Amino acid sequence: MLDINHLKKILQEFSDVRDWNQFHNPKNLAMALAGESGELLEIFQWMSDKDSNNAFKDADIKEKTSHEIADILLYLIRLADLMNINLSEALTQKILINNQRYPAHLVKGNAKKYTEY
Amino acid sequence: MLDINHLKKILQEFSDVRDWNQFHNPKNLAMALAGESGELLEIFQWMSDKDSNNAFKDADIKEKTSHEIADILLYLIRLADLMNINLSEALTQKILINNQRYPAHLVKGNAKKYTEY
Amino acid sequence: MLDINHLKKILQEFSDVRDWNQFHNPKNLAMALAGESGELLEIFQWMSDKDSNNAFKDADIKEKTSHEIADILLYLIRLADLMNINLSEALTQKILINNQRYPAHLVKGNAKKYTEY
Amino acid sequence: MLDINHLKKILQEFSDVRDWNQFHNPKNLAMALAGESGELLEIFQWMSDKDSNNAFKDADIKEKTSHEIADILLYLIRLADLMNINLSEALTQKILINNQRYPAHLVKGNAKKYTEY
Repeated sequence: MLDINHLKKILQEFSDVRDWNQFHNPKNLAMALAGESGELLEIFQWMSDKDSNNAFKDADIKEKTSHEIADILLYLIRLADLMNINLSEALTQKILINNQRYPAHLVKGNAKKYTEY
Repeated sequence: MLDINHLKKILQEFSDVRDWNQFHNPKNLAMALAGESGELLEIFQWMSDKDSNNAFKDADIKEKTSHEIADILLYLIRLADLMNINLSEALTQKILINNQRYPAHLVKGNAKKYTEY
Repeated sequence: MLDINHLKKILQEFSDVRDWNQFHNPKNLAMALAGESGELLEIFQWMSDKDSNNAFKDADIKEKTSHEIADILLYLIRLADLMNINLSEALTQKILINNQRYPAHLVKGNAKKYTEY
Repeated sequence: MLDINHLKKILQEFSDVRDWNQFHNPKNLAMALAGESGELLEIFQWMSDKDSNNAFKDADIKEKTSHEIADILLYLIRLADLMNINLSEALTQKILINNQRYPAHLVKGNAKKYTEY
């Protein structure tokens, strides 16, 4: 369970006490989120597909991945807050869209049929 | 409140019925997440900082942002699942690290002191 | 003038003597390029639009940008090599496409009309 | 051979006649470049490492890759122009750095020793 409202408040306060609200506009947060997703890529970029399936067994890689995922999620919660987006509703809506966009019987086992979730 | 365990199961089933587990290794999911964060960037890339602060008032931009944020979050939940990472713990741990890394009295109003959260 | 053929050979040799060809497939190189573009983002993410226009006057920022740009270009040349893509032809073709896609009289001063070059 | 000065002028004029200089600051161009690198990722994200080695044989994939690579390179040339960075010198300098950073005898066949070029 993630208490998004609680996390929003933690991040608001984190920014408030550092006087960082001046830097936290949606454009900058989108950049920061993409920057972190670049760091996530760097963890896996020279790893084979197969090795990435076993990467969770390596404590260092798991911890590094955990930190990057957390960074992305923190920026994402902050961005959603500033854009007045309800994350829970956004997810529900997108899952419905994905179910319609990728009917199981049409895309079964076929990666070519989709380029995004 | 986000019920991550419930979302994990929805995404597992979504992948199972489409026979997409063969594509969902951590490496590919990191790429897909970064691809979506690129789409998020495209929403804001020609917008001024100031205009991005008002972007939430534009229903189209808000909806598009909502979709990209949801895509990123879905991939993130799926990646965390495959890496055996507990998102709630990952966030708690990273927030503690950030509090130590950016002491409020040292970084107040100063964007140069930090390059990541 | 960039001598792409010469650069291709330098990069081939760089990879050969390190036995890195096993890691340099197009997928991994695309990831590495995107990872570097994430580092490029981090240089500018907390900077205002206006300040970024003066960023070239800061020797440190200019050097850091120079390194990231070079990294991106090196991966790009290597990726084009492996994909058998002629960079010069690719540029000529894309410039023509862009000229057709964004007719000057229709998109003048309008950022909304385009989301990519 | 890429005539960077010629390409710089083409891109300057492309932007001038569209009155797009107002959008082309280094920050926005870094975002646009990263956005295109996200599109590049999407080409390869569900492809196996091995399949990506044969991707150049697929005319559609090759063309799509060619377009994304060209987009990235055009933004990169434009960004270097605005940052007053000489691409040729930037490459030469970075290649020297990489040669020192990754001594062949130490990193031979080892992807773990490096996370960037």
